[in-house]
Amino acid sequence: MTRLLASLFVLAPLLAAADEGMWTFDAFPSDKVQRAYGFAPSAEWLERVRLSSARLARGCSGSFVSEQGLVMTNHHCAHTCIEQLSTAGEDRVKSGFLARTQAEERRCPDVEVNQLTAISDVTARVRGATKGLEGEAYQKTLRGEMARIEKECQTSDALRCDVVTLYQGGLYHLYTYRRFQDVRLVFAPELAIAFFGGDPDNFMFPRYDLDVAFLRVYEAGRPARMDRFLRWSAKGAAPGELTFVSGHPGGTDRSLTVAQLQYQRDVALPDRLLSLAELRGLLTGFQLQGEEQKRISTALLFYVENGCKALRGRLEALQDLEFFQSKVAAEAALRAEIAKDPERARRVLPAYEAIERAQKRLRELRKELSALEHGFDGDLFGFARTLVRAAEERPKPNPERLREYRESNLPVLTQQLFSEAPIYPEFEKLRLGHALSKIRERLGPDHAAVKKLLGKESPQDVAARVVDGTKLRDLALRKALWEGGAKAVADSQDPLIALAKLVDPDARAIRKTWEDEVDSVVKKSHETIAEARFAVQGRTTYPDATFTLRLSYGAVKGWKEGTRQVEPYTTIAGAFERHTGRDPFALPQSWLDAKARLDLATRMNLVTTNDIIGGNSGSPVFNKDAEIVGLVFDGNIHSLGGNYGFDPSVNRTVAVHSDAIVEALAKVYGGQRIVDELRPAKAAKAGRGTRKK
Amino acid sequence: MTRLLASLFVLAPLLAAADEGMWTFDAFPSDKVQRAYGFAPSAEWLERVRLSSARLARGCSGSFVSEQGLVMTNHHCAHTCIEQLSTAGEDRVKSGFLARTQAEERRCPDVEVNQLTAISDVTARVRGATKGLEGEAYQKTLRGEMARIEKECQTSDALRCDVVTLYQGGLYHLYTYRRFQDVRLVFAPELAIAFFGGDPDNFMFPRYDLDVAFLRVYEAGRPARMDRFLRWSAKGAAPGELTFVSGHPGGTDRSLTVAQLQYQRDVALPDRLLSLAELRGLLTGFQLQGEEQKRISTALLFYVENGCKALRGRLEALQDLEFFQSKVAAEAALRAEIAKDPERARRVLPAYEAIERAQKRLRELRKELSALEHGFDGDLFGFARTLVRAAEERPKPNPERLREYRESNLPVLTQQLFSEAPIYPEFEKLRLGHALSKIRERLGPDHAAVKKLLGKESPQDVAARVVDGTKLRDLALRKALWEGGAKAVADSQDPLIALAKLVDPDARAIRKTWEDEVDSVVKKSHETIAEARFAVQGRTTYPDATFTLRLSYGAVKGWKEGTRQVEPYTTIAGAFERHTGRDPFALPQSWLDAKARLDLATRMNLVTTNDIIGGNSGSPVFNKDAEIVGLVFDGNIHSLGGNYGFDPSVNRTVAVHSDAIVEALAKVYGGQRIVDELRPAKAAKAGRGTRKK
Repeated sequence: MTRLLASLFVLAPLLAAADEGMWTFDAFPSDKVQRAYGFAPSAEWLERVRLSSARLARGCSGSFVSEQGLVMTNHHCAHTCIEQLSTAGEDRVKSGFLARTQAEERRCPDVEVNQLTAISDVTARVRGATKGLEGEAYQKTLRGEMARIEKECQTSDALRCDVVTLYQGGLYHLYTYRRFQDVRLVFAPELAIAFFGGDPDNFMFPRYDLDVAFLRVYEAGRPARMDRFLRWSAKGAAPGELTFVSGHPGGTDRSLTVAQLQYQRDVALPDRLLSLAELRGLLTGFQLQGEEQKRISTALLFYVENGCKALRGRLEALQDLEFFQSKVAAEAALRAEIAKDPERARRVLPAYEAIERAQKRLRELRKELSALEHGFDGDLFGFARTLVRAAEERPKPNPERLREYRESNLPVLTQQLFSEAPIYPEFEKLRLGHALSKIRERLGPDHAAVKKLLGKESPQDVAARVVDGTKLRDLALRKALWEGGAKAVADSQDPLIALAKLVDPDARAIRKTWEDEVDSVVKKSHETIAEARFAVQGRTTYPDATFTLRLSYGAVKGWKEGTRQVEPYTTIAGAFERHTGRDPFALPQSWLDAKARLDLATRMNLVTTNDIIGGNSGSPVFNKDAEIVGLVFDGNIHSLGGNYGFDPSVNRTVAVHSDAIVEALAKVYGGQRIVDELRPAKAAKAGRGTRKK
Repeated sequence: MTRLLASLFVLAPLLAAADEGMWTFDAFPSDKVQRAYGFAPSAEWLERVRLSSARLARGCSGSFVSEQGLVMTNHHCAHTCIEQLSTAGEDRVKSGFLARTQAEERRCPDVEVNQLTAISDVTARVRGATKGLEGEAYQKTLRGEMARIEKECQTSDALRCDVVTLYQGGLYHLYTYRRFQDVRLVFAPELAIAFFGGDPDNFMFPRYDLDVAFLRVYEAGRPARMDRFLRWSAKGAAPGELTFVSGHPGGTDRSLTVAQLQYQRDVALPDRLLSLAELRGLLTGFQLQGEEQKRISTALLFYVENGCKALRGRLEALQDLEFFQSKVAAEAALRAEIAKDPERARRVLPAYEAIERAQKRLRELRKELSALEHGFDGDLFGFARTLVRAAEERPKPNPERLREYRESNLPVLTQQLFSEAPIYPEFEKLRLGHALSKIRERLGPDHAAVKKLLGKESPQDVAARVVDGTKLRDLALRKALWEGGAKAVADSQDPLIALAKLVDPDARAIRKTWEDEVDSVVKKSHETIAEARFAVQGRTTYPDATFTLRLSYGAVKGWKEGTRQVEPYTTIAGAFERHTGRDPFALPQSWLDAKARLDLATRMNLVTTNDIIGGNSGSPVFNKDAEIVGLVFDGNIHSLGGNYGFDPSVNRTVAVHSDAIVEALAKVYGGQRIVDELRPAKAAKAGRGTRKK
């Protein structure tokens, strides 16, 4: 983090800086944009953009880019699907994929796409329910009321209703989505160009990636019709031009208290990073065994490497003494404001102490919590736990269930549980065996739960035994156990189901302790602080990111890296210059073959000052006419500290330029069909039809 | 870390607590021991113990335990040698090793044993040379004067002379050792019992490990005659009995300033831990390929796992807010004492600020320093760098060389360089390839040195090319390049030599910057602080550990873990109870077979309150009659924070009980020959001869 960020926070701890903010659509600061860039988004404009924005439910963003349900997102957001649609004989991650006709579009086993259709405020109802409650009672009632609201809203599986917590409990909103579970792969380039530069170039710029994939949402077996979508810009974005990014930033921690930040810095981040680093090494070693091992583990390794780099950036931000001091000062300033009213002070300030105590409690609980509730790995174990827990949760009244088993979440849960994605036993053994060995490491071999899990076996023995013995790879069996409920699960002799049953009482117990003594205390306390913040400041800023739809504004702009000016664009020519022929700097053969046809001056990637974070991957970058000029796929290295604060001088969004997408589709991939769908007017002029069938 | 430690430091920041201290032999506090335990070691007693203590030059301790040069140390200290003496067909790490006759004792390729024969104070001479100097001049002169003193002392290769820095430069002592490079393996049990419980039980107690190995030092092809050695205790140590540990603690950081501790906590430890965690995963993955891969990488994996656990313990100690605050308070207290004399304050206090500035500079340099100077891995690259640097350094006058190339260090350097230990190309490629890829990750693919190293190749390509192409596995070639010096190295077309030459200017440059702008500033500043500390406190405490011989006193004593009392002993019966049959809890067949013969009530391991740290592995535990009662092989989990401070309530030394060693030798391994050598009187009584041949 740089000095500027620190000083900004110290001088104006309560105000968002220029271009800062992941704003909700119901409270977008059009006046601010007007002042800075001379354009004020209207209500109609905002509605159109909102409805053109897509969420990939497992953690990415996208946009609707045609009337026929075409969705643009990143290759890395579709990577798992592409891998699932591959086999040892046909590796589409390596070779890419193009559906030459609509009939060739292939269904992704477990992608869900959401379109946000309505936002309503349910704060009063939630507050009314939880009024005066603390601890377990607060947690239970809060969860129950949220589940109740969601169930009332969700009248069909084609809807998704989520009560979302904004401003750490300052507001509760009901988000209603149109839900698409029939999502098909239309186009993906080769991994080699989608992720050109690989982990070494990840979070870096200049950059030369075609990190794009096109999907299509279907309804009743036909492409879904979209009334609203984003059109393609004819010319891309000029330097300094105003740009918007609409998407689903996954989470930020800008409003955490100092006690929470300390916990992040000292415990949570180092812990998580060390787990990821070891898993990274293990997967790298696993890949030494051969091409097939490499193929089936590449998506996970990407995810892990990306996480290592991202979390390391966060850790470094918090380790910056000056930056941390700025967070301490900001908290002190807010507390001082609150303290001006003695009655408010009496009511609100203890919330800070409560959060601090909860963090101490969390230090005590964390090993068991991370081992028993979050420490397992592998798809098969995931199935087993879902089945075991569903059997216990589904008979309960909706508001009393564990949150992931509430009615409104079941479509997501079953899509994963009933996925037809391939499962690789060898890989499952590796992951589960490693997880079990780390659980033993965290808790020690003499911990009662570890003894129960392992008995006299080694972690690898247990993993081999249950993976070899389980029948859960069989989709029909999973369906039968789901339908059969508690009795079917109780009667099951499947060794993986048995393993999941064995650990479940311990895992549930530690989770409940955490919910009652940490999570509910933190939630309730933040709610109290948030109310006070609104009272003293009004709703003048944006809430922390929560994987809900946000709009950010900014401009095409490079930055100064030390003494060096980084330009905001790269070109296709640059990709050829960076090509070494060796992974991850090897352009695919298709590009080498197409070089002569390509306009090498075409802009390839660009950076903007938009405020984004992980989860924004796949977000469209568009101009004030809501025309696409780019596709977000990354942030620069300075964006990693953005989890805790935004530094406008160096924090940058990294995107694929819109021109590179159509240039490559047309001249490298033979994807004119898609280009015509993106630019129907131009296609019509050229005499090519793109009418619906 | 516990509350007690923190409060002790706050209340008495300048005094060593009960049983605390790794004392030098020239200033052992016999009076303190007398007051605490009623026994005051005499000068003769201290001399005998000193001469009976052994140092394994590559990082362990040991003791001379017979007149015929028998050395007792840990299995894990001899692990590398045992692995080197193994082949794919005969894995002695797995099966153990016993020389039934002296003729069967096998020479370790690169073990050096030292016996400390003299200590003399050279502080005045060093101070005289560096007086008034700063930065590069200070560093150069200091190094030069130390090299000069060492060379004058070292009149033969059978001597080793090291000028050691004590009290962070408060004192400079010349340590003269008798050097043994012909060291042979006499006995090692199976890894399965030496490291029973593996990484899960590492740093834990109760414990059941036979972590012992016997070596023998030779001179002129015959066992070296030792006038002084430690005898075996007939009865072991009783609960509460006074115990001494003599050995070579590798390093502690108890005197670091707060700025340095902050750097450790925020930068150095997380960095190192993340590297180790990834390497750990990689080695675990590498081992998936088969038994041979497992065999050749087990020693390194042990080292890495041990490091992960140890450094994690250190990090947790520094992350303990209360403990860290105690260090802040201790520094403030010393500064306040210094400040009482304005003249002294003016001279000394700026040293603290200088250290703080140096840490900031280190933050800037660390990436290049860790990548280019410390980031390479593999034995072959080590040979290449040594040859390249030796060619440049050896022609220089001794005092001007890089410290590791000074005359007095050449015997150690050449022992490693000319080692006949086997080299495994596949493993070398893995290690060098991984190292190169981490260097690229640290510096980025566009860093000039990275471009030079990799060109258009991938890290793995480079590693494969140079390992396949090099002839450095050939000992004769290494000797020729060493003898041939600068011209031979310049003419060499060997690809590994070329790689080492390629990076050397960059690596030397960043090292020099670090030496001049960080290391020399820190050294000089600590020297200033140390002088002031002596002036205000006298020499009332012990210096930080520096892998020089130290003596610690304590007692056999368990501790309270939460509400649970941990007893100080385990028995052989406990090992059988813990046996699951699966690695790492599988006793070797030899033990299962011997069970009926063994006295199961024999004490297996024990804990004492002695103050030790990594490097003390292999140290003898002995009573006031200088009789061996145990063999240090570990510390408990609370000992890990001992790097920064000693907590007498819970910090414990973990040792093999002397009874278990003879019981196992006699009844499991048929090692009566060794037992008789350890207990000649008893052997004579039983009518077995152990006379020298």
